[in-house]
Amino acid sequence: MAAYSVLITGANRGIGLELVRQITETQRPLSKVFACCRDPDGPKAQELRALAEKHPDIIMVIRMDVADPKSIQQAALQVGSVVGKSGVNVVINNAAVAFYGPLCESTAEQMAISYSTNVVGPMVVMQEFLPYLRAAAKAHGKPGMSCRKAAVINVSTLGSSIERAKDHYDRFRLVPYRASKAALNMLNMCASLELQKDDVLCVLLHPGWVRTELGGPNAVLDAQESVQGMLKVMESLSEKNNGALLDYNGDTIPW
Amino acid sequence: MAAYSVLITGANRGIGLELVRQITETQRPLSKVFACCRDPDGPKAQELRALAEKHPDIIMVIRMDVADPKSIQQAALQVGSVVGKSGVNVVINNAAVAFYGPLCESTAEQMAISYSTNVVGPMVVMQEFLPYLRAAAKAHGKPGMSCRKAAVINVSTLGSSIERAKDHYDRFRLVPYRASKAALNMLNMCASLELQKDDVLCVLLHPGWVRTELGGPNAVLDAQESVQGMLKVMESLSEKNNGALLDYNGDTIPW
Repeated sequence: MAAYSVLITGANRGIGLELVRQITETQRPLSKVFACCRDPDGPKAQELRALAEKHPDIIMVIRMDVADPKSIQQAALQVGSVVGKSGVNVVINNAAVAFYGPLCESTAEQMAISYSTNVVGPMVVMQEFLPYLRAAAKAHGKPGMSCRKAAVINVSTLGSSIERAKDHYDRFRLVPYRASKAALNMLNMCASLELQKDDVLCVLLHPGWVRTELGGPNAVLDAQESVQGMLKVMESLSEKNNGALLDYNGDTIPW
Repeated sequence: MAAYSVLITGANRGIGLELVRQITETQRPLSKVFACCRDPDGPKAQELRALAEKHPDIIMVIRMDVADPKSIQQAALQVGSVVGKSGVNVVINNAAVAFYGPLCESTAEQMAISYSTNVVGPMVVMQEFLPYLRAAAKAHGKPGMSCRKAAVINVSTLGSSIERAKDHYDRFRLVPYRASKAALNMLNMCASLELQKDDVLCVLLHPGWVRTELGGPNAVLDAQESVQGMLKVMESLSEKNNGALLDYNGDTIPW
């Protein structure tokens, strides 16, 4: 099995940081982990910098603001200069923002910011890193789809399920977040149909309700449990899961 | 039965214009039809102006750019000054833009424009016209939900169905449009849950594939057939349909 490489957005905290940690410490053979965040030099990236210093051969911290297409292009050039023909095997679109309001109190600005970060960002990341994903699929060479070959993991949420909204709307309004994540689910479905010819797997994962800055202190999971589950699900993915929305236990969530 | 009033966005052409025409000519008793469009004085509103001149007591042409929240607020003030305690019974969010590209060719700008017009616009319209919808529900007085009482009709599309995307993605890429309409479906579901206490029905309608500027010349329906179907479905709606996505025949489309 060839050493593989992974890129993670929003890698400086919460689930993103835990993904960097667990992938770096448990996945073998591993080539590179590209840990992307908006401000690698700022106070909010301190833990990530410390982790990167512990694993200088593996972790490369990359500046990327997913709300800014130019910043994504620059990050792609930087990654491209490192990976060569082996490409990037897994791109994890994890960066996201959430606003918690009901429909009546949500603003046009909250909606625009949510869409830009949670949907347009992942789209541009997929576009800009597609050459490296294709390279990875080609370098892998064997038929089928998997995260060891080439995959995009779009981090979504149970809250994106239109079907299930009635079960928890009273407790979790989150209208700008929900609307953007429903759109992300569609984007991932379109990507899965468009990129299947390249053997690039596109899957949506719900990390569970996790105690992070986004999930709040009352959430039921810690980031460690959630990421353990997500990595186990990622290892199990094949072409059968292309386009799907799965939770961190591997169960399908309805649209 | 009390005379009712209807507001339609994107009313100067295609399905919007045909909705104004058929509602004005066939629905009785009818109080007012508020026909909203971006540029009521421009060349693209000529047909609407002619129709309004034929029915000066019914049709009121209102300036509204759904991509501009301030313009929606101004339109709401204008409508509010006319309707009084009887409110507005039906708000039809019909205005929309479409970009046709695949994921790999769609731009951040196309995504932002689509979201602003197809999702944020309908949200702000719902917010600004909610007082008039509530007034209409109160004036109606009887229990239950219906378009004769108070309803928001959000015009969606079969293309918003994540489940069905695989059936027609090769022919209809439309990524920015699809993503925005999937978000609109979520927005409507949230609205249906939030506004049920006010007896305001929220339903998504797919008009079919219609020969309009948006649908193109190869579409299978003309606007007249589509709107006949939509109005028949609207007449049949009750609280059972709250939150649903139905086509112009009344059949449910999966998320």
